[in-house]
Amino acid sequence: MIVKAYVAKKPGLRLESFQYELGPLKPDEVDIDVEYCGICRSDLHMLKNDWKMTKYPFVPGHEIIGKVSKVGSMVTHLKKGQRVGVGWRSRSCQTCLQCLSGYHNRCPNGEDVIVERHGGFANKVRCQGLWAFPLPDNLDYKSAGPLFCGGITVFNPIIQNNINSTNHVAVVGIGGLGHLALLFLRAWGCDITAFSTNPEKEDEAKKLGANHFVNSNSIKDMKAFTNAFDLIIVTTNADIDWDSYISTLAPGGKMHIVGAVDQMKATVFPFISQERSIGGSPTGGPAVILKMLEFCQRHRIKPITEEFPLSKINEALNHLEKGKARYRIVLKNDL
Amino acid sequence: MIVKAYVAKKPGLRLESFQYELGPLKPDEVDIDVEYCGICRSDLHMLKNDWKMTKYPFVPGHEIIGKVSKVGSMVTHLKKGQRVGVGWRSRSCQTCLQCLSGYHNRCPNGEDVIVERHGGFANKVRCQGLWAFPLPDNLDYKSAGPLFCGGITVFNPIIQNNINSTNHVAVVGIGGLGHLALLFLRAWGCDITAFSTNPEKEDEAKKLGANHFVNSNSIKDMKAFTNAFDLIIVTTNADIDWDSYISTLAPGGKMHIVGAVDQMKATVFPFISQERSIGGSPTGGPAVILKMLEFCQRHRIKPITEEFPLSKINEALNHLEKGKARYRIVLKNDL
Repeated sequence: MIVKAYVAKKPGLRLESFQYELGPLKPDEVDIDVEYCGICRSDLHMLKNDWKMTKYPFVPGHEIIGKVSKVGSMVTHLKKGQRVGVGWRSRSCQTCLQCLSGYHNRCPNGEDVIVERHGGFANKVRCQGLWAFPLPDNLDYKSAGPLFCGGITVFNPIIQNNINSTNHVAVVGIGGLGHLALLFLRAWGCDITAFSTNPEKEDEAKKLGANHFVNSNSIKDMKAFTNAFDLIIVTTNADIDWDSYISTLAPGGKMHIVGAVDQMKATVFPFISQERSIGGSPTGGPAVILKMLEFCQRHRIKPITEEFPLSKINEALNHLEKGKARYRIVLKNDL
Repeated sequence: MIVKAYVAKKPGLRLESFQYELGPLKPDEVDIDVEYCGICRSDLHMLKNDWKMTKYPFVPGHEIIGKVSKVGSMVTHLKKGQRVGVGWRSRSCQTCLQCLSGYHNRCPNGEDVIVERHGGFANKVRCQGLWAFPLPDNLDYKSAGPLFCGGITVFNPIIQNNINSTNHVAVVGIGGLGHLALLFLRAWGCDITAFSTNPEKEDEAKKLGANHFVNSNSIKDMKAFTNAFDLIIVTTNADIDWDSYISTLAPGGKMHIVGAVDQMKATVFPFISQERSIGGSPTGGPAVILKMLEFCQRHRIKPITEEFPLSKINEALNHLEKGKARYRIVLKNDL
């Protein structure tokens, strides 16, 4: 079967038309007719080969919504025509300690949609059936794509750190991931502080649920939040002032990194004296994705998106690269 | 009441005889006749004013065993003549969120034995009654002092990280703290790996409970432990090869720092991809100290100590400074 897609043939943000042959379907896989696909900042990193793992020709796209078009013989939980979402992962082994413990997102034998395969900037995509999640009927499917990478990436830390509504949580960076973190935490009933280097985002952040807004460039403003946060979710990929942020963690608090920052460099003593910690996580396991979908349905949460036709992919990438996206771009398949 | 002690009048490791007036006892305090006092590496740091918080004249000593000699009017759980142990903390407020949550060791209104008071290199010491812990009868009191700082500092991470006998745990640095960590983890039933820069410690570490020994200077030896550890307890105060150690953490694993390292500097991606984290902690709360004492009694665990008379304090400090202590020095009060 021939797939029509947009491809990069070398590092850079210029995509062009491309066709490839999908080959035979494995018994545990499904094919999906793509309807919508979000653009994640990871797509930009992969396009530029920032992580030295891009294989060219490279088809980006891993926030996919579409309808199952073909079902492998061993897939029992999906039907042809069913609307599903697919994120970063496309396969996990199901037999390693991580998979068996519910952490399929940490499976060392796994595959990812845009690493081992071609992604969702295309009219079709393929993955292991497990990683295609049925979309609840009353979730707006046109904007749901970003939940499957950006959304789960900030939802997972809230689950893994056992956050409840008595907690004070900060979100650093109010973009594709950050705006979803605010929406999730508002529904969670937390006290929410938004950190951004762009003071123009204050009004919007407060509308999305932030109780407080801090300009991250202002050390003085940050000092007012000393010892304040049980959890800080860092969504930026720029370097941050580590020691200043650590000082805003409450005793026992955790800084949880999901943005592609390069290095951490911090004074150790404030970790010891106040039992603080730093960690991170990659997207989330299947059980957490299912919880997120049910949660979004119940709380009527949907990503705030801007729509471009897939054929305008280069304009869309340019819009995102310039920091203009509010807050996530989704591409409508018009191939 | 006059206390006889050893004091430093300026930064450095030379102590001299000293006397000071203890003043009136507060209703919630007790006085203790010192029998034994351990020497902790923190005493050396404080003597040299490495942490810029030493007040001279300075009396070190915060691993104290002795008998209650005077009981404040509001102290109901201790009696005159009772044998107790005292560690780093000497007071906590009991009313802040940290104290009320059992984390009295994180109380921001607290006092410490050698910061706000004079310490245990003396014939008497004073503290809030809460911070004097009755010693179980069949715990060897001559060697028990080091449990109250070195011991609780490595016991607390085992508790806080919910370690059980299915876990694989590494201990970095086999000295005063590290040898106790090995003894605790052996009783816990964990798989234990000892890291040391001194290959001569291998036999001893294995006798103390280590299943594996790794020369921390050998990157090759460390590579055999990639993704191995659920918890790494870092007891050294020297800088370490952060990225190499992080790579030995299992998915979801944590590096827990209790040694006085200055800065952490690590690549962020291995934290995100494998949900690893770094944190630290200061000693432990009173409930955890009581658990540790009961645990040591039940498992017949006691620190391995070398005894010096208090009057030979300068020889003892020199012995520790040169890295010769196996594994903790205790001073017997002969004043």
